[in-house]
Amino acid sequence: MIEKINSPADLKALPEEDLPALAAEIREKIIKTVSERGGHLSPNLGSVELSLAVHRVFSAPEDTLIFDVGHQCYTHKIVTGRGSAFETLRAPGSVSGFPNKNEGEYDAVTAGHSGPAVSEALGIAVSKKLRGDETYTVAISGDGSFTNGMVYEALNNCSAKGLRLIIILNDNGMLISEAVGGFSKHLSRIRTSERYFAFKCGLKRFFSRIPLVGKALVNGARRFKESIKRLFLNTNLFEALGIEYLGPVDGNDVSKVISVLEEAKTREEVVLVHLKTKKGLGYPPAEAEPDAYHFVPPFDPDRGAEKDPETFCAAVSDALLKLGEADEKVVAVTAAMPEGSGTAEFGKRFSERFFDVGIAEEHAASFSGGLALGGMRPYCAIYSTFAQRIFDQVLEDVSLQSIPVTFLLSHAGLVPGDGSTHQGIFDVALFSSVPGITILSPDSREELTSLIETPCEKKAPRVIRYPKGREAEYPRDLFEKIGSGLYVFNPDADVLIVTYGRVTAQAFDAADLLAPVLRVGVVRFTKIVPLDGEALLKAVRGAKDVYFVEEGIKRGGFAESAAAYLETAGYKGRVFIHAIEDEFPPHGDLDYLFDKYGFTSDAIARRILSGR
Amino acid sequence: MIEKINSPADLKALPEEDLPALAAEIREKIIKTVSERGGHLSPNLGSVELSLAVHRVFSAPEDTLIFDVGHQCYTHKIVTGRGSAFETLRAPGSVSGFPNKNEGEYDAVTAGHSGPAVSEALGIAVSKKLRGDETYTVAISGDGSFTNGMVYEALNNCSAKGLRLIIILNDNGMLISEAVGGFSKHLSRIRTSERYFAFKCGLKRFFSRIPLVGKALVNGARRFKESIKRLFLNTNLFEALGIEYLGPVDGNDVSKVISVLEEAKTREEVVLVHLKTKKGLGYPPAEAEPDAYHFVPPFDPDRGAEKDPETFCAAVSDALLKLGEADEKVVAVTAAMPEGSGTAEFGKRFSERFFDVGIAEEHAASFSGGLALGGMRPYCAIYSTFAQRIFDQVLEDVSLQSIPVTFLLSHAGLVPGDGSTHQGIFDVALFSSVPGITILSPDSREELTSLIETPCEKKAPRVIRYPKGREAEYPRDLFEKIGSGLYVFNPDADVLIVTYGRVTAQAFDAADLLAPVLRVGVVRFTKIVPLDGEALLKAVRGAKDVYFVEEGIKRGGFAESAAAYLETAGYKGRVFIHAIEDEFPPHGDLDYLFDKYGFTSDAIARRILSGR
Repeated sequence: MIEKINSPADLKALPEEDLPALAAEIREKIIKTVSERGGHLSPNLGSVELSLAVHRVFSAPEDTLIFDVGHQCYTHKIVTGRGSAFETLRAPGSVSGFPNKNEGEYDAVTAGHSGPAVSEALGIAVSKKLRGDETYTVAISGDGSFTNGMVYEALNNCSAKGLRLIIILNDNGMLISEAVGGFSKHLSRIRTSERYFAFKCGLKRFFSRIPLVGKALVNGARRFKESIKRLFLNTNLFEALGIEYLGPVDGNDVSKVISVLEEAKTREEVVLVHLKTKKGLGYPPAEAEPDAYHFVPPFDPDRGAEKDPETFCAAVSDALLKLGEADEKVVAVTAAMPEGSGTAEFGKRFSERFFDVGIAEEHAASFSGGLALGGMRPYCAIYSTFAQRIFDQVLEDVSLQSIPVTFLLSHAGLVPGDGSTHQGIFDVALFSSVPGITILSPDSREELTSLIETPCEKKAPRVIRYPKGREAEYPRDLFEKIGSGLYVFNPDADVLIVTYGRVTAQAFDAADLLAPVLRVGVVRFTKIVPLDGEALLKAVRGAKDVYFVEEGIKRGGFAESAAAYLETAGYKGRVFIHAIEDEFPPHGDLDYLFDKYGFTSDAIARRILSGR
Repeated sequence: MIEKINSPADLKALPEEDLPALAAEIREKIIKTVSERGGHLSPNLGSVELSLAVHRVFSAPEDTLIFDVGHQCYTHKIVTGRGSAFETLRAPGSVSGFPNKNEGEYDAVTAGHSGPAVSEALGIAVSKKLRGDETYTVAISGDGSFTNGMVYEALNNCSAKGLRLIIILNDNGMLISEAVGGFSKHLSRIRTSERYFAFKCGLKRFFSRIPLVGKALVNGARRFKESIKRLFLNTNLFEALGIEYLGPVDGNDVSKVISVLEEAKTREEVVLVHLKTKKGLGYPPAEAEPDAYHFVPPFDPDRGAEKDPETFCAAVSDALLKLGEADEKVVAVTAAMPEGSGTAEFGKRFSERFFDVGIAEEHAASFSGGLALGGMRPYCAIYSTFAQRIFDQVLEDVSLQSIPVTFLLSHAGLVPGDGSTHQGIFDVALFSSVPGITILSPDSREELTSLIETPCEKKAPRVIRYPKGREAEYPRDLFEKIGSGLYVFNPDADVLIVTYGRVTAQAFDAADLLAPVLRVGVVRFTKIVPLDGEALLKAVRGAKDVYFVEEGIKRGGFAESAAAYLETAGYKGRVFIHAIEDEFPPHGDLDYLFDKYGFTSDAIARRILSGR
């Protein structure tokens, strides 16, 4: 049946009773594709029926669908004409793993970070109201996103009347890992109150029938009605914020979802529809361990996914365990990423000193500041791309307070697979303006481990950033240490490449390639902020040409800052900067991205040969 | 009586019945001082009793007090030994208008932005628990801060037991301007339920007396108890999040506040105490118009505060009104700053197209993105310092979506008065790495108006930044326009100062000072990002020395980026950069700050003469 569904119109033409069979086919396709290509498995398995129901009840793209994060958009992609392309999921030029505007009008936004969907959908719904456009706007968001402050900020602004905005809470009782905090307990309470929905609907009908005649009577009756309503109806957080609430409903029962969405369409105000879904549904290992199967690399569906013990992430995990043992003051904080950030094992061993705060990066940063103020030694682990949210907190609540907090930024630099929303190319430019900050870019597991084990040298924020996956291989022993965190190969060469982090391997290979025709050296910095300008100047003094190679955004990055230093220091050689210019790298594997952005050894060598 | 209170111990020694008289004396002192020195008036008038009660019930600095924002810390400063210094409030070297760690151990953090207090206090309370320290931690936060997502993120993580953490909600029914959104309506509902507190206390006692004997009976009774409790007790947002709630209590009745805080101390879990206070209490004009008296410059207490019609802010207000009239697509968004951001008049005239979203900067940015997606023409007005919170949203929800949103950043550059937490010196460095962004720095009201009226030229974010207050005066007609947003005085001089924004006046004066001995020119950029490198190179080609002068942080700023461009372009002259290095400027007036950071014409001239 699945091959006949090439648009929402095809889906609408199916008899409703065929939908469960279609859902089963879609699940099979998702499991097969993700096992071959890697991707977000368990959230997409949980949201098949939800997506089918949304496309039955609403008419995209006229009705606007906004998926928060987009961990749950695969079914949506399959039923909107991308079923065949989906088979090469995440390949360069094929469909990305997230909603993406470049793939056509069905994806209203390019998504990837938790939280903004309700804000964006509210903006669109308000615009439609102002323009007299009567189509609907639907935000689809997981319960994990509801631990994010942005969602609360948006819900707090949803009380306007006349908006055709429906917010679907896809509640699988999990964040990316497991439910944390008061909100999830609150959800599980309302989730278990089976008869709550029916009871409330009945109560509403009853109230709407109370006649209001005569002014005194009206006031008395209204007061009575309001106080009873407050007791019985405003019993959940959404209602407390003045938002119409429908649910909970079994989100894996497609007919039930269709009914509740039809009901939601009839209201002329913002409605939150609460669906309970099962993460991983249809693939037993993912049902059993939904966190482990949240995102998976390609795997054998019969054997399940495996962990790589040789990653930077695994080194973080080991280092934190060792530190936790040695120093009772060591505490670890993560924003819903215990596995991905390497803090999960620390959390198992030292549960009292481990804090998974939910998808709440701002809180994670300022809470870490509080822990440092309280005398602890906090390590706050957040992916580079999500750390884009904590500039103000690092600045005001750590730097300005003169307290030591270590931020562990995984997934720094180009990130394979996930695409434009998840690139870790901004953190250096972003955080370098924070007074007193230290930014370190280790290029091996050993160096990372040693940096983590060293306490902050200043009462100030310290960022340690490293890529997803394994360390690059190149002959590190050919590099001489010429300063603190400063290494050089062929120091006396006429041409020097100055770089940091993973791309050092490509820089070395470029020097090696050119060896028969040109002597090229490589200078590698570990401490990139603050720049040790004198050491840089000393290192490049004898060279005629300096090539900066930076696996990060150019404007405001390391290379610009270093080149400005050389300019003001009166350096006489030629200086070239190669970094990522003014754009968002798309999805693709690392080879593809390195090739596209000129970070291969060939590309570096060619630039040196042609003097640009 | 007030002169005898030099520490919390003095306060504790007073008979409780003397406290209202002391409160009256403190009010008088606050009104007198603020009228002479300027400062935050109405929030401090509302929180006198609250502060006295906190210092009676708790023992600072052993018990840690964290004021959110700090708009309400004056009484705290007066009773912690800073009563005389308070008379020179906001003078350089005297007490600042916000909590400040540099003023001693009673200020546990330096505060100024809304939202982080609960996160920080939670971090401290958790540290204390881990260390076995039994002192209390108290976060004091206005209802305005509760519209900020960070507070929600923190509350969501407050369900741990055994924490001695008390959160005081100082509810004056106002944000900085007026209450917005579902949360404030929710508060006003629970605020008006007079007998709610007493009723709930009785109910709790009743439930605690139900005996639970025998397994089946226990389960049945527990279920009954839970369902009744859910109906009657979890009726507010805090309880929905699993936080013990006490209140509401009259926060201007010092004895009542003391009682409820004593009660809160007895709980071994996180407690939220809800106090209702009156903003502006004790100064009738401020009671009548609490928003207008939120912050005031020095004023005559008999006449009240007056507005300056010649500010950049007033120009924004006029320009938006005109635009709103001409184009129905123009919408304005602000985060709780309608007056300060110049959007208030637009809001009065075009209420349907105006959105004050509360202290919710992240939502403001992504919601503006949604409005642009919906076909509107959004202007999002946020102070430079608070825009530090929206990097991720500008990047992911505007730039990546290829949509035009104008961000109006007031209070850019050095900010007089408020101090280290409020400096607008980071925005250029911060936002310059966003792909496709345009950053504009007009230096006159006329230029600002014209930029606002011009639609975004690209489908991308546009930042227009300008200082607090009036434009600087210098003979603009002596500058020649040599490109789009590029102006030069004495283009053929050997020495050129390259700058942008307000400090252009000082650069011109420096050139003027030096005229008898040295010909100095000035190049002023309006469009600072993206840099027009070719135009810069052309402008400085003939000069021997280029002095960049930047009223902003150095690392990652305009000057470094421009100097890097000159370095890679092979510019042969000498280049000097003068900007703010790696620190947070303290409070003081603009003359003081310009002098301290070397932005006076004298200082600039001296640097040029001495070649540094």
